[in-house]
Amino acid sequence: MKIICAFFLFTILSTSHASVNDFCVADTKASDTPTGYPCKPVSEITSDDFVFHGFVAGNTNSSNPVALTPAFVTQFPALNGLGVSAARLDLAQGGIVPMHTHPGATELVIILEGEINAGFLTPTSAYSKTLKSGDLIVFPQGMLHFLVNSGKGKASAFLTFSSANPGAQLLDNLLFSNNLPSDLVAQTTFLDLAQVKKLKARFGGRY
Amino acid sequence: MKIICAFFLFTILSTSHASVNDFCVADTKASDTPTGYPCKPVSEITSDDFVFHGFVAGNTNSSNPVALTPAFVTQFPALNGLGVSAARLDLAQGGIVPMHTHPGATELVIILEGEINAGFLTPTSAYSKTLKSGDLIVFPQGMLHFLVNSGKGKASAFLTFSSANPGAQLLDNLLFSNNLPSDLVAQTTFLDLAQVKKLKARFGGRY
Amino acid sequence: MKIICAFFLFTILSTSHASVNDFCVADTKASDTPTGYPCKPVSEITSDDFVFHGFVAGNTNSSNPVALTPAFVTQFPALNGLGVSAARLDLAQGGIVPMHTHPGATELVIILEGEINAGFLTPTSAYSKTLKSGDLIVFPQGMLHFLVNSGKGKASAFLTFSSANPGAQLLDNLLFSNNLPSDLVAQTTFLDLAQVKKLKARFGGRY
Amino acid sequence: MKIICAFFLFTILSTSHASVNDFCVADTKASDTPTGYPCKPVSEITSDDFVFHGFVAGNTNSSNPVALTPAFVTQFPALNGLGVSAARLDLAQGGIVPMHTHPGATELVIILEGEINAGFLTPTSAYSKTLKSGDLIVFPQGMLHFLVNSGKGKASAFLTFSSANPGAQLLDNLLFSNNLPSDLVAQTTFLDLAQVKKLKARFGGRY
Amino acid sequence: MKIICAFFLFTILSTSHASVNDFCVADTKASDTPTGYPCKPVSEITSDDFVFHGFVAGNTNSSNPVALTPAFVTQFPALNGLGVSAARLDLAQGGIVPMHTHPGATELVIILEGEINAGFLTPTSAYSKTLKSGDLIVFPQGMLHFLVNSGKGKASAFLTFSSANPGAQLLDNLLFSNNLPSDLVAQTTFLDLAQVKKLKARFGGRY
Amino acid sequence: MKIICAFFLFTILSTSHASVNDFCVADTKASDTPTGYPCKPVSEITSDDFVFHGFVAGNTNSSNPVALTPAFVTQFPALNGLGVSAARLDLAQGGIVPMHTHPGATELVIILEGEINAGFLTPTSAYSKTLKSGDLIVFPQGMLHFLVNSGKGKASAFLTFSSANPGAQLLDNLLFSNNLPSDLVAQTTFLDLAQVKKLKARFGGRY
Repeated sequence: MKIICAFFLFTILSTSHASVNDFCVADTKASDTPTGYPCKPVSEITSDDFVFHGFVAGNTNSSNPVALTPAFVTQFPALNGLGVSAARLDLAQGGIVPMHTHPGATELVIILEGEINAGFLTPTSAYSKTLKSGDLIVFPQGMLHFLVNSGKGKASAFLTFSSANPGAQLLDNLLFSNNLPSDLVAQTTFLDLAQVKKLKARFGGRY
Repeated sequence: MKIICAFFLFTILSTSHASVNDFCVADTKASDTPTGYPCKPVSEITSDDFVFHGFVAGNTNSSNPVALTPAFVTQFPALNGLGVSAARLDLAQGGIVPMHTHPGATELVIILEGEINAGFLTPTSAYSKTLKSGDLIVFPQGMLHFLVNSGKGKASAFLTFSSANPGAQLLDNLLFSNNLPSDLVAQTTFLDLAQVKKLKARFGGRY
Repeated sequence: MKIICAFFLFTILSTSHASVNDFCVADTKASDTPTGYPCKPVSEITSDDFVFHGFVAGNTNSSNPVALTPAFVTQFPALNGLGVSAARLDLAQGGIVPMHTHPGATELVIILEGEINAGFLTPTSAYSKTLKSGDLIVFPQGMLHFLVNSGKGKASAFLTFSSANPGAQLLDNLLFSNNLPSDLVAQTTFLDLAQVKKLKARFGGRY
Repeated sequence: MKIICAFFLFTILSTSHASVNDFCVADTKASDTPTGYPCKPVSEITSDDFVFHGFVAGNTNSSNPVALTPAFVTQFPALNGLGVSAARLDLAQGGIVPMHTHPGATELVIILEGEINAGFLTPTSAYSKTLKSGDLIVFPQGMLHFLVNSGKGKASAFLTFSSANPGAQLLDNLLFSNNLPSDLVAQTTFLDLAQVKKLKARFGGRY
Repeated sequence: MKIICAFFLFTILSTSHASVNDFCVADTKASDTPTGYPCKPVSEITSDDFVFHGFVAGNTNSSNPVALTPAFVTQFPALNGLGVSAARLDLAQGGIVPMHTHPGATELVIILEGEINAGFLTPTSAYSKTLKSGDLIVFPQGMLHFLVNSGKGKASAFLTFSSANPGAQLLDNLLFSNNLPSDLVAQTTFLDLAQVKKLKARFGGRY
Repeated sequence: MKIICAFFLFTILSTSHASVNDFCVADTKASDTPTGYPCKPVSEITSDDFVFHGFVAGNTNSSNPVALTPAFVTQFPALNGLGVSAARLDLAQGGIVPMHTHPGATELVIILEGEINAGFLTPTSAYSKTLKSGDLIVFPQGMLHFLVNSGKGKASAFLTFSSANPGAQLLDNLLFSNNLPSDLVAQTTFLDLAQVKKLKARFGGRY
């Protein structure tokens, strides 16, 4: 008897559930907000929304030593509002991920294979280590950091983030791919003007 | 003199107020976001928006022992973005709220009448008590919990939550009302297959 | 076979659980932090920590028309870090809860019995209603609000909050129980000086 | 060689950047949400979006002693989601910012010139000081506070806030500009009815 | 000249940095708080604090099919306050991670090798898929979920979480390892009493 | 009568207030936590705690063109947990604040006098402007930014932040004052090795 009646409760609770934000798969065609995209209707969601394929080794070789495969909210809309994302990094021998920051995310790196020298910089110390398969390193939010394949073959890693959309701000891209006058860049970085101009030419910046 | 002039300040401040989020009554017809619904225009808001009626004893009897009246953001849009909601629970003699969780909310229970045995489970302990009118119990966010009318007559309680939309995930609903193969449910719960099939039949699950 | 082995996993997970913040019952003798008290050791926690007794009608009468029974983190340390608390309010006929704010919490009021006129104020509108048993009203965070027993007998309500420690700032207490010079209070409130002095005398303020 | 190849990485990362919320300039014509406005498309953003002009001394004189220039999200949409805003305050001699609160923001005041007596009120203490150029005072979130030009000439200050949209709730505006019955205001504030009626007349409230 | 002088600015900024929370490596011997552990002094921190070793395949075999290696804040104190953690999962053929929840964390799974059938349950749907190396699946916060090695050999995965301390609440552990009376467990789960007693015996629960 | 009785309510509420976190002035000698310092006892707090003196023009001249006066939580403990802080910046003619980030804070700049060229960098654009007295500019959290006195005399500004402890990470300090090998810095920044060595010598880095 009791059991049959309990279905009434189930009905009430399941109905109230219809609007519950147990998840909020991004409607990436709608306008973003400071905390993420509006949600796709639950009625349109299937198991496929929660799965991302193709997190496999990118093609690298001596002339293309770095491959990054992101699974951020743009690529994987189910992450919207959930505070986590990931990327796969493949480095040919000598491959380098140059200095960069993620302004809104901590990065936790899991080394898969090879040997990677990685670290982050603070005003008072550089914290860095040479890592091997089975090692983790964490770069706290907003810290300038780098990864270098310091071994003799390929290296790869999974990168995970405390945000659905960590972005990536490569230092050279920031400094040398824009149209800030070269002498202003030189003044505010203490770099030699010739150095700035050389890198502006290389990274596509004007002036 | 001074007082008259102050009206200028008032005007400025009141104007700036027009867009202030002192509250954000949900426009529940718009798409939800990870942190709640878009706001209805302030010009459409009246005192009635901030009031919810009908938080009264639900009809229960021996063949329908559980009644739940939610006042979540869906029913009471003024709660949008305010981090609180409530529900009224009525239990006929023998009534049971079976094991369930609220993934995004702590629940604070206020016993109104009768005797309720309530508790929540952690991997290392079950914390439970028999409660009477005037007792509170708190179920921390995400914990599996239950309430049972353990007394001789009716029992009722107010449930309050640390979210405008706590949802409710009844364990049997989760396990037995879906289309996961019965043997997979059995494997991942250690329940006997016959038990799984029996409850699948009862809760509407396929396979 | 499989089942026996799974105990290994259980052991690992339970061990890792030892330090998990499924809850954080306040050690109220330690120093508070901006987000709550340090946690009591899990080993000292029992079911009694999660229960609060005495949430019953306070004594009111014509010469003592207001009784408030708080269950905030100070009285109920299990609420620490959980973002919710409650209080019981009893009002004799004519009883009034004067204008006040909770700077860090939304308040959701559940009317138990009697008739209560309640509302909150914004720069552009006063939102108020006369409420009866079974009605809810919500006062968004930081809004100035009041409750008055507007009926013919007793009235009572449960107050629930979106914070473990909502505090309560009664306007008269703020304005008239301190040692700010009366003319400064008059200047900054536009009240007549005589009115300020009269209330300072009543509420214990100096000057 | 390596350097040329790194452009591939740059391309990938820059592409993934296209949707990154490094900032979210408000589209103030869209509906607000509990955490801010939807974002304008990045393609429409220029340097001008991040700059606000006219944060200069407002016109004050003996008959208009208070001028406030807000730079909140409504005036300066780039602040959307960034948790900070500012206003400039100019006070002629004798100018007063009467008692008010910001329900959702801490205020940090920087005195520019003149002498200002400022403070905030708690149930147990009034914290106030006479401040000069080069002094700061902080009013914690939701506290009732005031500022008075207590010097012999003009005074001015910058007000900064821990929210993009702090609002401002002036006590007299709250109490005396609305349509709450005067006797209800008197009852819930302990003010004399005549005082309430006098201020209702002055501040535009009805009844 | 300019450059030399800039050192003064550097000195000021570096000094102010001494107390900056760029990171907060946990002092796990101090009492936890609702938002994490107190920080170890920066002077005691070295590069080794940010690195975790031993994230390698656990030993599994037919009689011990599941191995989990957590890198949560307890094992890796540098994660304190950073909102991310990870674990490595190894499953022998037939290995199963039974139904469980993480009350305070979303889980993002990266399949390394083998074939894993994984999914999570909501009151209205079960979302599940069979995954292979290079697939990701996300389990939103608090959802009941499972993973099964559905392939012909070993399987392994990295689990990453949106919390430094996700915990893990295995359903059987919750229901059957405690001292709740068996008939109460049966009543609140709709399981047969014999089933409850059988699993209580297996999982160490009393009664 | 009613008024006298209301004092009972006041007493209850004021008592419950004793532990309310209306503010949490930092005990900076205690260990920090991820969300701020433990609170000083309320009984030790006076008005002086909420005031900061000395926010005046720093000494600058042609050989010392930059002065920064921070009022962060270390200098001004009342800001603890309140999400806001400030600094005063003075620049002699030609003075420069070189490229830097605040990993955990948005910066809102108020120009006081002079002419300042300021901007921030993203991977796809540099947003910069020449600003004068009465202009504001905002640097969203974590963005690399700079300020240059581009006028003919002194310049000054107030800097306000969306954090009680924004820190400051000067790019040159990060790259050139540590002990990372020069060739590693060169590799990960694309700078010429000679340039790196030159700046390492200047900024105190080893190798």
